Amino acid sequence: MKRFDDDLAFMLRYENVAWYENGKVRILDRRMYPTKIEFVTCSTHQEVAQAIADMVTQSAGPYTAAGMGMALAAFECRDLGRKEMLDYLEKAAYTLSHARPTTANRMVLTTNGCLEAARKAMDEGRPVDEAIFMRTIDSLNRRYSTIEVVAEHLVTMFPDKGTIMTQCFGETIVGMMLRVARKREKDIKLFVPETRPYFQGARLTASVACDMGFDTTVITDNMPAFVMKRNKIDLFTSAADVICMDGYVVNKIGTYQIAISAKYHGVPYFVTGIPDKAHQTIDSVTIEERDPQLVLEARGVKNTLEGVKGYYPSFDITPPHLVSGVVTDKGIFIPYDLNRYYDTEVKEYY
Amino acid sequence: MKRFDDDLAFMLRYENVAWYENGKVRILDRRMYPTKIEFVTCSTHQEVAQAIADMVTQSAGPYTAAGMGMALAAFECRDLGRKEMLDYLEKAAYTLSHARPTTANRMVLTTNGCLEAARKAMDEGRPVDEAIFMRTIDSLNRRYSTIEVVAEHLVTMFPDKGTIMTQCFGETIVGMMLRVARKREKDIKLFVPETRPYFQGARLTASVACDMGFDTTVITDNMPAFVMKRNKIDLFTSAADVICMDGYVVNKIGTYQIAISAKYHGVPYFVTGIPDKAHQTIDSVTIEERDPQLVLEARGVKNTLEGVKGYYPSFDITPPHLVSGVVTDKGIFIPYDLNRYYDTEVKEYY
Repeated sequence: MKRFDDDLAFMLRYENVAWYENGKVRILDRRMYPTKIEFVTCSTHQEVAQAIADMVTQSAGPYTAAGMGMALAAFECRDLGRKEMLDYLEKAAYTLSHARPTTANRMVLTTNGCLEAARKAMDEGRPVDEAIFMRTIDSLNRRYSTIEVVAEHLVTMFPDKGTIMTQCFGETIVGMMLRVARKREKDIKLFVPETRPYFQGARLTASVACDMGFDTTVITDNMPAFVMKRNKIDLFTSAADVICMDGYVVNKIGTYQIAISAKYHGVPYFVTGIPDKAHQTIDSVTIEERDPQLVLEARGVKNTLEGVKGYYPSFDITPPHLVSGVVTDKGIFIPYDLNRYYDTEVKEYY
Repeated sequence: MKRFDDDLAFMLRYENVAWYENGKVRILDRRMYPTKIEFVTCSTHQEVAQAIADMVTQSAGPYTAAGMGMALAAFECRDLGRKEMLDYLEKAAYTLSHARPTTANRMVLTTNGCLEAARKAMDEGRPVDEAIFMRTIDSLNRRYSTIEVVAEHLVTMFPDKGTIMTQCFGETIVGMMLRVARKREKDIKLFVPETRPYFQGARLTASVACDMGFDTTVITDNMPAFVMKRNKIDLFTSAADVICMDGYVVNKIGTYQIAISAKYHGVPYFVTGIPDKAHQTIDSVTIEERDPQLVLEARGVKNTLEGVKGYYPSFDITPPHLVSGVVTDKGIFIPYDLNRYYDTEVKEYY
């Protein structure tokens, strides 16, 4: 089976590689990474959906995991007739795409693509699981190409020598951004807020940046404003879970607060990603709340007495007036004019 | 020996009780509290200074610890002559008051008071350690009375039914504020940011509030802005390590960022404490940086790969235009007019 482009292999350590092989899906457990390298092995597509819900894989990882989960579902129903098999796969597609409410709209595109690949394979008498696996790998490679273009546009906004603040782990874009910055010989330092409660910034963003040889400093999530004041920050950037057509940005909790601080300090905020036609306005976005216990502990150690409540909105909403630009594969757009993105041919993103 | 006023005993669980007895000073280790109740036992005043530097005791705790450390120093030099004894105590006073640079100015007031008590005891032929101990207890009781008045003024700003956001553990003021709120039958809910890297908000503020029966919700430090937007927050309050005469507030890292968010959302920010004449302007304040390793881990678990740097400014600076009012024992002052506080007789604070 075809693997990834070699020159992108460096990023795979930081991606949430989900892999279908021998009737199982193996997913790198990013809740532990990088201090522990552990994999979650799923024997059914329902277990893959559970792993997605449980945050085993994050940011762009769930899209690959859902594709691999569909390949596993095809393996599960391999002995059924065509109609029963398609029924089974459609149910699996629903289970996998709805594992997390916030991203269900986009995830459906992934699982629909898998269903299409499945139908085609059946028509041609090829193994369905392998067809879905190949489709998932192709989609990953296409995503990498798109994100590389996004990174090119983003890095154009960087000074030749400057300090960038990030938020959470911006999936593939962080690695691409740094690769492009190095290629263009931009001497970039990074300030990386840790991103409680999962510490994605400390564990993932800082790891990829440090591994690639960049000067990388982790701070706690209460420090961005003071760092913007004391240390010169040239630019704040994040990826997004959803960029609505009205310019509202949904991203990991904390983005809104840093964007407010950035505005206060005159630091531009560039969000990377493709405007989402499924969300014409912010009103159609459901902000996911996760298990409040996670806020009451850190790395498995409880911080609070019994009786204290927790609140864990997983994402927040940044309004367009705090966004300096939306960086896409077709250039940088102001957040008030995102329909312009669709004036030219739509590229597939996931 | 005299103990504390009984009706204030409830707060002692949340204070950093340092206690001199039998040639030792025992300090509640607030780095572990409340999930573990452990004490650090110091056999020399230098060990007390080290405990203060190591954050065993926090917020107002170091002042009591320094007093108890002075009592211990008096015990150490009990067999010396008067002049040698005073020399020894003066050196101990320097060591204890300078354990942390940010608070040295105010700490000197505490150790000077102890030296005065020591001289008086020598003149009168009383045991010097006991005199310093008594002076420390008296000072603590006086501090409680003062803070009770501050709390009365602060709670006047609360709505009858409302939600308050806190920052870090505002020493005695949090307990006093809640006691006064209950007395006045104000139905207050609290949102408490956890305060990385030590989690004082989650461990201490939330514990005292929950124990006193208030509805208490802990959030991570990247959530205050979103909570202000989504959940109605009526008022943000914090104590301060230093309130400069020019209205700049030095407090636990994170205060500045929440104050910016509060301004953005139209939430008033009230800081409690006494304006510090030793700091006419913010320029004389040194912002303490602590061990960056603490930012790279949580509850003892490392989050980052080797090579990633950390940055740990322990305090930040909030400018007067983000402060709605400075709440003192003499009423609430605007941050631009703090000399007015000293127009009437100065009460001793510590």
